[in-house]
Amino acid sequence: MNLGFIGLVQMGQGMAANLLKAGHQLTVYNRSPGKDEALLALGATRAATPAQAAAGDAVVSMLADDKAAEAIVFGEHGILGSPAMHISCSTISVELSERLMAAHAQAGQRYISAPVFGRPDAAAAGKLFVAAAGAEHDLNTASPVLNAISQRVFVLNSHPPAANLVKLSGNFLIASVIEALGEAMALVAKGGVDKAAYLDLLTSTLFSAPVYKTYGGLILEGKFEPPGFAAPLGQKDIRLTLAAAEALRVPMPLASLLRDRFLTLMATGGEGLDWSAIGGLAARDSGQ
Amino acid sequence: MNLGFIGLVQMGQGMAANLLKAGHQLTVYNRSPGKDEALLALGATRAATPAQAAAGDAVVSMLADDKAAEAIVFGEHGILGSPAMHISCSTISVELSERLMAAHAQAGQRYISAPVFGRPDAAAAGKLFVAAAGAEHDLNTASPVLNAISQRVFVLNSHPPAANLVKLSGNFLIASVIEALGEAMALVAKGGVDKAAYLDLLTSTLFSAPVYKTYGGLILEGKFEPPGFAAPLGQKDIRLTLAAAEALRVPMPLASLLRDRFLTLMATGGEGLDWSAIGGLAARDSGQ
Amino acid sequence: MNLGFIGLVQMGQGMAANLLKAGHQLTVYNRSPGKDEALLALGATRAATPAQAAAGDAVVSMLADDKAAEAIVFGEHGILGSPAMHISCSTISVELSERLMAAHAQAGQRYISAPVFGRPDAAAAGKLFVAAAGAEHDLNTASPVLNAISQRVFVLNSHPPAANLVKLSGNFLIASVIEALGEAMALVAKGGVDKAAYLDLLTSTLFSAPVYKTYGGLILEGKFEPPGFAAPLGQKDIRLTLAAAEALRVPMPLASLLRDRFLTLMATGGEGLDWSAIGGLAARDSGQ
Amino acid sequence: MNLGFIGLVQMGQGMAANLLKAGHQLTVYNRSPGKDEALLALGATRAATPAQAAAGDAVVSMLADDKAAEAIVFGEHGILGSPAMHISCSTISVELSERLMAAHAQAGQRYISAPVFGRPDAAAAGKLFVAAAGAEHDLNTASPVLNAISQRVFVLNSHPPAANLVKLSGNFLIASVIEALGEAMALVAKGGVDKAAYLDLLTSTLFSAPVYKTYGGLILEGKFEPPGFAAPLGQKDIRLTLAAAEALRVPMPLASLLRDRFLTLMATGGEGLDWSAIGGLAARDSGQ
Repeated sequence: MNLGFIGLVQMGQGMAANLLKAGHQLTVYNRSPGKDEALLALGATRAATPAQAAAGDAVVSMLADDKAAEAIVFGEHGILGSPAMHISCSTISVELSERLMAAHAQAGQRYISAPVFGRPDAAAAGKLFVAAAGAEHDLNTASPVLNAISQRVFVLNSHPPAANLVKLSGNFLIASVIEALGEAMALVAKGGVDKAAYLDLLTSTLFSAPVYKTYGGLILEGKFEPPGFAAPLGQKDIRLTLAAAEALRVPMPLASLLRDRFLTLMATGGEGLDWSAIGGLAARDSGQ
Repeated sequence: MNLGFIGLVQMGQGMAANLLKAGHQLTVYNRSPGKDEALLALGATRAATPAQAAAGDAVVSMLADDKAAEAIVFGEHGILGSPAMHISCSTISVELSERLMAAHAQAGQRYISAPVFGRPDAAAAGKLFVAAAGAEHDLNTASPVLNAISQRVFVLNSHPPAANLVKLSGNFLIASVIEALGEAMALVAKGGVDKAAYLDLLTSTLFSAPVYKTYGGLILEGKFEPPGFAAPLGQKDIRLTLAAAEALRVPMPLASLLRDRFLTLMATGGEGLDWSAIGGLAARDSGQ
Repeated sequence: MNLGFIGLVQMGQGMAANLLKAGHQLTVYNRSPGKDEALLALGATRAATPAQAAAGDAVVSMLADDKAAEAIVFGEHGILGSPAMHISCSTISVELSERLMAAHAQAGQRYISAPVFGRPDAAAAGKLFVAAAGAEHDLNTASPVLNAISQRVFVLNSHPPAANLVKLSGNFLIASVIEALGEAMALVAKGGVDKAAYLDLLTSTLFSAPVYKTYGGLILEGKFEPPGFAAPLGQKDIRLTLAAAEALRVPMPLASLLRDRFLTLMATGGEGLDWSAIGGLAARDSGQ
Repeated sequence: MNLGFIGLVQMGQGMAANLLKAGHQLTVYNRSPGKDEALLALGATRAATPAQAAAGDAVVSMLADDKAAEAIVFGEHGILGSPAMHISCSTISVELSERLMAAHAQAGQRYISAPVFGRPDAAAAGKLFVAAAGAEHDLNTASPVLNAISQRVFVLNSHPPAANLVKLSGNFLIASVIEALGEAMALVAKGGVDKAAYLDLLTSTLFSAPVYKTYGGLILEGKFEPPGFAAPLGQKDIRLTLAAAEALRVPMPLASLLRDRFLTLMATGGEGLDWSAIGGLAARDSGQ
């Protein structure tokens, strides 16, 4: 396929590379220069504007937040109304996804939402998970693209914003694990239990999921720098989760607790830390 | 070894049977009659009092709550001061475990704490996990007993109440998963996402631990009867977690949230349901 | 003075009438027609657009929410750039007040923020309280206006958005009283205490403030219709409080709790009730 | 009347003095010596045991906690079964009040519960408020006693523990005010508003109750030493409130939040501060 890719930071680099490896033609765009060297070396073409990356069959976007995602669609030389189907992989708000859905429909442009789960190493390895939503025909068209970047695609339904809601809820669930582990580890540690032995017990038994191993390990070591996923991004995702919940009128007290944790972290010197640093707040509040 | 076993309800039945299968001599006691038939058929001897079950090398206790655990130690014909080492497998308060530790020491009786993780089917299969704490010499003595009932024993440290703290924290972590899933599923469902597809996505990716599959499935089906682990038991464990946290001065806001959830559940008709029914409250509060 | 008044719903009616009574000339505007009859009878002049109401010395705006407040400033025939100083009395977001401050400054138009405390009866009686912020010279100019509508003006500082922050925080404090009373009354009532006697005790002793009498009485009677201040407005104000708190990085766990209460209320049939109906949720969750 | 008084710390001193001033005969007891000098000078008689103070018409008890209250009733030379009616003014648990009610009834001794609202200066001035519950005949007997120590007596019902529940709920309400003020003041202060001006606005308008003035002033000055009512006592009262709520199955999320605040305070150096120091935690968590 003749593809475009917009947004070449950590995650995007790996995803775009896997599209090239799968044999697709790729035109790439990044707002700030110097991010596309490796991809050009692999055979990609450089686009001067977002619109130039959207002249083919489909264009994948992978951006940091709502503002960046809005800019490449609605901004000058944006992709709105271009021939390419828009495959949006960014973690954006449900509300923006609804606006994109409406705008693309009005412009006669196909649009699916396909946010991804996984960290940069999974992106590089083509081992992401994709939560996809959109019209069946569009999902079929996008299938070779999504398969090239992931180990599995989960199709949710025909309403693109549904995939964004699922992605946000997933980050809420991860943050919940961090908070729960933070409280439990603060408790047992103050009670004299070795945290490493404790974490081994947990992750060898009922809590064998990768998320417990990864974040439990970070809390255990108190190693929150450099950030793999920075606190402000975590805070943003909880904010977007709560915004979606408010629009749907779903009270989420645990998400509210996480919101306050992130604000506390960021107000007390944790701006530059990994989001798992909220898992250290229970220990701090208990005087450890 | 010449063993005793006190407390023959669901979990205890399976554990005692595995001790017999492992070739130990077993004297069994249960307060209410008629629970020991199957074990007698397997070769166990019936004790008329707790003390009679504590005349050998070690006596295992597996009781429902603090009150029952206190009764078989401090009550009439209790095991306090008996020759057998006391291996306490019940989920009891840290505070009671501290009192047991002191009382047994004063009476010259050995005591270890060895609460278990797992549901009745795991107990029957000898596949529990054990969190054990006590003097090294005592743990060595107890080793054949603990191995017979479990797939793995995690030794924490030499202070028996530490194992009770770990067990309680484990139930707190499970309840946290139930709450988080309950909120997330209420959110996505109200947003039009199919809950079964959502749960499949979660448990196939980052949340592959058994606890997510088990409790996610129960919330998905809204099937909270009959209870595998009843709401009042869950409420009790969160209460004991919070009591231990208070004694150690560890604020645990997520545990506080769970406390309120259990009270709400029990005050509004959920007394007889499985504890995972707190996972339905977010949906209820959102009008679903 | 030659004044304008924009926004003639309940509160605005009373405020505008008091300006006329104080001897000011008044030109009035309301988006939907038929709200100005009483004021015209008192000597007011009708404006066909917001801008027409802003041709004199000052224009007071009193609107329901951010959207309405934005429209009369930035919309077609809006007041931006008009000769009159803008005295904004609406309960709007801190963020919008910041934008108004910047836009008015750029347009060379004076702007102060002067949100009010009090219900419609206090507005009609000229007995509101005003929280005012703006340049000293502007506050002096506005002084006769603010005095005519209030029993007291509290000057905060020279930064208009500060007054909006104070107003929002005041509504947060009132909602906190409602929640606290709701929990306390649910507790004592389930314990067999007569709620009326209880409320009499509270309000005769430490909790003698009007807010306890007013809202305690509403909770006591369970009389939440018709709404004096509707639940969605309360929810909006807590949302704006949390938004301001997020921008300033101030975690407010009690405000988060109130947020969830309002969402629960609105998701379960309370959309049309008075905001004090969140004070009935603790009783409901306790099975009363 | 021929009265006894047990518990002569700050509050008790003032209350006992007012009984003497009202013309009653008074026998006084305090566990630790040296607290009764002033009262003996006013004409009181010293009792060597609690029982000796309970030989007359009625004995008032005013103790710091459940443990002390239990000791003077059930302990050696306790008052259980004495001729005097027991007027319990201590802030104790509902559960202990229930046990006292049963034990006194069984011993044929009259018992009412009459906890008080007010600080030491109000006790000295005879200006406390009393929340009383008990049999009508007993309350009539106690009437001269209660009137002598208070400015008003609120009779609740015939069930003594009801008065203890009301007292605990009152302290919960005060702590709620502290938390709400703490969050609001942290918010506006970080937004650049002068806290003193803010507090003046609040307490001159809707929040004119003494509790807002008292605690707002303490938070404003950040002056939490020496404690008028120490943090551990506040924490105890919230614990007893939550225990009563748990027994009655009333979820109280705001009380849960306060619980965590007190634990945080006490775990991070606030053990010796006034309980209003929880009102400083929102500022701390926001980096102020």
